Amino acid sequence: MIGGGQLARMMIPAAIELGVELRVLAEAEGMSAAIAAERVGDYTDAETVLAFAREVDVVTFDHEHVPQDVLHALVDAGVPVHPGPDALRYAQDKLLMREGLSRLGLPVPEWARVETPAELDAFIADHGGAAVVKTPRGGYDGKGVRVVHTAAEVAEWFATIAEDGRAGALLVEELVEFRRELAQLVARRPSGEIAAWPLVETVQVGGVCSEVIAPAPRSAGKLADVAADVAIAIAEGLGVTGVLAVELFETTDDRVLVNELAMRPHNSGHWSMDGSTTSQFEQHLRAVLDLPLGGTGCHEEWAVMVNVLGGPVEGTLADRYAEAFAGHPTVKIHNYGKAPRPGRKVGHVTAIGSDLDDAVYEARAAAAVFQD
Amino acid sequence: MIGGGQLARMMIPAAIELGVELRVLAEAEGMSAAIAAERVGDYTDAETVLAFAREVDVVTFDHEHVPQDVLHALVDAGVPVHPGPDALRYAQDKLLMREGLSRLGLPVPEWARVETPAELDAFIADHGGAAVVKTPRGGYDGKGVRVVHTAAEVAEWFATIAEDGRAGALLVEELVEFRRELAQLVARRPSGEIAAWPLVETVQVGGVCSEVIAPAPRSAGKLADVAADVAIAIAEGLGVTGVLAVELFETTDDRVLVNELAMRPHNSGHWSMDGSTTSQFEQHLRAVLDLPLGGTGCHEEWAVMVNVLGGPVEGTLADRYAEAFAGHPTVKIHNYGKAPRPGRKVGHVTAIGSDLDDAVYEARAAAAVFQD
Repeated sequence: MIGGGQLARMMIPAAIELGVELRVLAEAEGMSAAIAAERVGDYTDAETVLAFAREVDVVTFDHEHVPQDVLHALVDAGVPVHPGPDALRYAQDKLLMREGLSRLGLPVPEWARVETPAELDAFIADHGGAAVVKTPRGGYDGKGVRVVHTAAEVAEWFATIAEDGRAGALLVEELVEFRRELAQLVARRPSGEIAAWPLVETVQVGGVCSEVIAPAPRSAGKLADVAADVAIAIAEGLGVTGVLAVELFETTDDRVLVNELAMRPHNSGHWSMDGSTTSQFEQHLRAVLDLPLGGTGCHEEWAVMVNVLGGPVEGTLADRYAEAFAGHPTVKIHNYGKAPRPGRKVGHVTAIGSDLDDAVYEARAAAAVFQD
Repeated sequence: MIGGGQLARMMIPAAIELGVELRVLAEAEGMSAAIAAERVGDYTDAETVLAFAREVDVVTFDHEHVPQDVLHALVDAGVPVHPGPDALRYAQDKLLMREGLSRLGLPVPEWARVETPAELDAFIADHGGAAVVKTPRGGYDGKGVRVVHTAAEVAEWFATIAEDGRAGALLVEELVEFRRELAQLVARRPSGEIAAWPLVETVQVGGVCSEVIAPAPRSAGKLADVAADVAIAIAEGLGVTGVLAVELFETTDDRVLVNELAMRPHNSGHWSMDGSTTSQFEQHLRAVLDLPLGGTGCHEEWAVMVNVLGGPVEGTLADRYAEAFAGHPTVKIHNYGKAPRPGRKVGHVTAIGSDLDDAVYEARAAAAVFQD
C-alpha cells in the first residue's frame, strides 16, 4: 500500500485476520500506519516506488496522489496495480472525472472547463449568478473548492494554472441545491465481480465529513437503486478496482448527481468496520487480490459514524478513554494514532443499534468526549 | 504481551483500533504475532523478561507458562502485571486450582491429590473403577490428561513427579458424566469491574476445542445465571485481572462443575471477534489497562466458531480463499499465519445469524474448505 495514513492503518487489522502480509510505503516516519511501514519514501519518485513494488504481489493506495508516470512505470514493470492508472486518473483530475462521467451518460451537475475569467463569468451569468469553482488537482476535504459570484474571486487560481502546463483550466459547476449529501460505496474485482454496501447519508461541515448514517434514512427503494446503479456504472465504465466511493447530492428536485469520486476506502465507509459483515478495508483487500467479495449486510438496522476532528486541546485521545468507555460502553472507538491538531481527523466512533436517534446520540456524545 | 502465538496476533487489531501500542516478547522469530514482536526471548529468563517489561506500562500474557519467580521479579520491580502471579498460579497448577476452587465453595468434580499409585488406585476404587488423572503442570489441549482404570496406566507420570521437586503429586478427578461442555468468559479490571459474555457451548474432539456455539443452546435462565455466578466468583475469589475463561461440565444430573481455567483470551471466546460488541481481545486490553469494560451483547442471535485444525496437507490456507470466499461470503475467516501441520490450530471461522442450523452449517462448511 502506498501511503501511510489512517486508511493504511485501518487496513492492517483486516490484513492480519486474513493472513495477508501488508507492506506500506509511508511518506514519513511515525505515520498512522507505522506498525506495518516497511519503508519510508517519496511516492512521486519512480525509482523509490518501483523498488518497493518489486517485493510485493499487488500495489494499492491510501490516497490518489501517485503521479501517472509513476503508476505507468509500475504497470510497465509488470506489477499488478489496483486501481490502475487509467482508472485513477479520473480520481486525480476533476475535469477528467466530469468528462468521463458525462461520456458515460451519468447524472452530474452542469459543468464546464474554463480557461479564462471571461469564460467563468459567462458560466456564472448562465447559472443564476453563482457557481462552484474547483482546481482539477490536489483538492481534498474542501480544499481547492470555492463558491464564487465572480471570476475575480479565484483570480489567483487562474494565475496558477497559467503557470501549470499540466491542467491549464479550472472546473466550474452549477451550485447544486441539495437536500442532503449521500455516498455509495462499492468494491470491484479485476475479474468483474461487484458488491455494494447500503447507500449512506453524509454530513459535511466546512467541507469535511463529520457524520455518516448507514443506511441513509428514507432511502429504501428507488433512491437506493439509483445510487447503486450509478456507482456500479462508474466502477465498470472507468474500470475501477478495489473500493470506489461515489459522493452524491440528493437535490431539492429529487435528482441524484455525482459530486466526487474516491478510488480507495473512504471516510463514508468507516461505519462498515463495526456495522457490516465485511468492512471496506477487508473488501478492498479481497478486491485488489481478485478474491471473491464478502457480504455487505448490516449487523443492526442503523450504524452512525462520527469523526473526531481535532481532538483534545491538551493531551491525547487515550487520556479520555476512561470517560468515553464508561459513558458509552457499546460505542466502538477508533484512534488513528495521530497528534491532535485543530480540524485534523484523529479518529472516529461508531454506534450501531435498532433505534436511529439512540445511535446518533451515542455516537455524537462519545465523539464529543474527545473534543474541547 | 509475553508470548507470540495466535492470541497475541489477534490482540494486535484491537490494539491498533484503540491506539494502544502493543509490544510482544515472542518465543521465536516468525511466530503468529511477528508483526508486533519487538523482541524475541526466553520467557523463563527473569533478566530477559525484566528488560522487556521495563519499557512498557503493563505486562500481560498469551499463555500461562511464565514461571512464578519471573512474575514476582516483575512485581518486585514495580511493573504492573495482569493477571498477577497470585492469580496466575491457579491457572499454572491444576492441584492449586482445585484447592482454590474448593476453598471458595465452588462446584468441582470430586478430586484428590495423589502422591502414590496406591492412593490413586484407592480413589479409582471409590469412584466406580475409573478416574481422570492430570499432571498439575504443563498440560494443554488434552495433553497431560488421561482416563485410567488403574494406576499402572500412569506409572511414568509417577516416575516423573518423583524427580520433580516442585509438584510431587498428581491430580485425580472423578470421571464426570457430562451432557456437554460449556465455557463462561468474563473480564475483570484491577479496580473490580466485571463483564460477562453469554455462556457458550464448546465441542472438544480429542481434547482440542473444535466448535463453539454462542450463546449455548437451551441455556437461558438458571444455567446461564449459575455459570456467570461461578465465573464471577472465581475472578473475584482468585483476584483474576483480564479475561478469564472457565471451562464447565453440564452433568447428566444437571449440575455445573468447573473443569479448567484459563486466565487470558481463550479459544471459546474467538466468536466474540465477529459476534459481540466487544471482542475478548479488546476487552482484555481494556481490563489490563484498568479502563471501563465494553458491552458484551451479540450482533445476531447466534455465533458459531469452528477451528481450522491442521489445515491443508499441501499449500496454505490462502490457496483456498477463492473457494472459501465464493462459497461462504458471510463467514469471517481468521488465519493465524502458521504453517499447516496435523492437529495444529491454524485458524478459525465464524458464522453469525438468526438461524442456528444455518450458522452451524456455514461455519463447518467454510472450515472444511481448509482441511483435507
